[in-house]
Amino acid sequence: MNKLAELVFVGLGLYDEKDISLRGLDEIREAGAVFAELYTSVMHKLSIKKLEERVGKRISIIPRGVLEEDAGRIILEQAKKGKTVLLVPGDPLIATTHVDLRIRAEKQGIRTRVVHGASIISAVIGLSGLQNYKFGRSVTIPFAEGGFPSETPYRVIGENKAQGLHTLCFLDIKADEEKSMTILEGLKTLQALEGHKKQNIITSETLVIGIARAGSEAPRVKAGDIEDVMNHDFGASPHALIIPGKLHFMEAEALVTFAGAPEEVVERVQ
Amino acid sequence: MNKLAELVFVGLGLYDEKDISLRGLDEIREAGAVFAELYTSVMHKLSIKKLEERVGKRISIIPRGVLEEDAGRIILEQAKKGKTVLLVPGDPLIATTHVDLRIRAEKQGIRTRVVHGASIISAVIGLSGLQNYKFGRSVTIPFAEGGFPSETPYRVIGENKAQGLHTLCFLDIKADEEKSMTILEGLKTLQALEGHKKQNIITSETLVIGIARAGSEAPRVKAGDIEDVMNHDFGASPHALIIPGKLHFMEAEALVTFAGAPEEVVERVQ
Repeated sequence: MNKLAELVFVGLGLYDEKDISLRGLDEIREAGAVFAELYTSVMHKLSIKKLEERVGKRISIIPRGVLEEDAGRIILEQAKKGKTVLLVPGDPLIATTHVDLRIRAEKQGIRTRVVHGASIISAVIGLSGLQNYKFGRSVTIPFAEGGFPSETPYRVIGENKAQGLHTLCFLDIKADEEKSMTILEGLKTLQALEGHKKQNIITSETLVIGIARAGSEAPRVKAGDIEDVMNHDFGASPHALIIPGKLHFMEAEALVTFAGAPEEVVERVQ
Repeated sequence: MNKLAELVFVGLGLYDEKDISLRGLDEIREAGAVFAELYTSVMHKLSIKKLEERVGKRISIIPRGVLEEDAGRIILEQAKKGKTVLLVPGDPLIATTHVDLRIRAEKQGIRTRVVHGASIISAVIGLSGLQNYKFGRSVTIPFAEGGFPSETPYRVIGENKAQGLHTLCFLDIKADEEKSMTILEGLKTLQALEGHKKQNIITSETLVIGIARAGSEAPRVKAGDIEDVMNHDFGASPHALIIPGKLHFMEAEALVTFAGAPEEVVERVQ
């Protein structure tokens, strides 16, 4: 094995080609080959062409869904010859498919490194004004596959609430159909689950927070009663949801100040 | 109020002055005044001087612990005159002190925006190879203040484990004394709590993961039995800990491949 065999995972951040770090840019410039995987997350306005112009180097875009197979093999073969960069949305290694590729690389004797990027996880938490250590397990609300939706989100929100904890709900993305779940669809799914399970976890008085386009130049955050948030126009995707548990005073103040939450609504959950 | 009144929070990422994004750099270049708050988190090798040289602009460093008081007022007065940037370690708004400043700004009619940076939360999770949605609530292990340590970390780890979830443990930083807790000290604290509470949450057979210098050029990740990890030389701070719950197959494989976990140890928790 070539001593210089190396695969560097570089995070692209959240919005466009200007969200990469200076360190990430240097890695591209020094690499023998550069690939980009763009289907594990939505980057609002990324232009690989602009990034290519900036670094003066060709970037190969991995076709959707084949990182596990041929594309992964091609990247690893390239990395065996010398330093190779794989650009990915957000922070690398949050997507399972990248962890899998990293395991394969290391097993073949290829050194791996990570250049971190801004992640949707901390971006959404930060924009909400809620405190990180008060979040329980996060969950994805999936599109219903032929019939009734998965009960997991409802159960996780219930478990977190019972401990006074907030739940960050990612909303499903169907990359193949270029379809991503809206806040309205996510809340309707939770209401349908409430209608079925009847545990009073999602009621008309439940405080919810909708967050659209985290990381973009124009994110939108709105907190309030569920109907209030369902009627709000959040604009383009991607969307996310937070179902708060118990609020600290400063968290309540943040929701009133940044997210237009009515004071009487946040008082209920303090 | 000046229509251009604006405060932009810009994340610096995790390691040095090259971890800022191109977008963040543009914000500095366009700002009337630039401040840096560097005491909410440790950035291994940040040189504000190098950053100043790159952007050709002076950056005022906020003295330790006064963002809440005078320094905050000076920043807000500056922001009222026009676009002002506050540089912060990691991803902005994860620290409460920044959320507080943002609330004060908005209440005074100053527009606020956020340019996200790489966060220690997703960096540590990514480096471990564990899956984000399997983490429960995270917790900080604090230095014992005059006597017995806080029982919160022990309780949170126990609650997460009961649900099969992983726990990310941040280790205390005493900024005033430039002292940060090591993995060894963190594990000793958990053992002391076990000795006191005796709920078999931390035993000699407990799998733990130590992560040093996440985001740096030379992070170190080691997983194994508690004694094994206690005897490992992790090098310089900052350090963090993960106490895994139940492992998926790929998580176990990642710990063996990236973190030198013995196979028989990860098999116990699959």
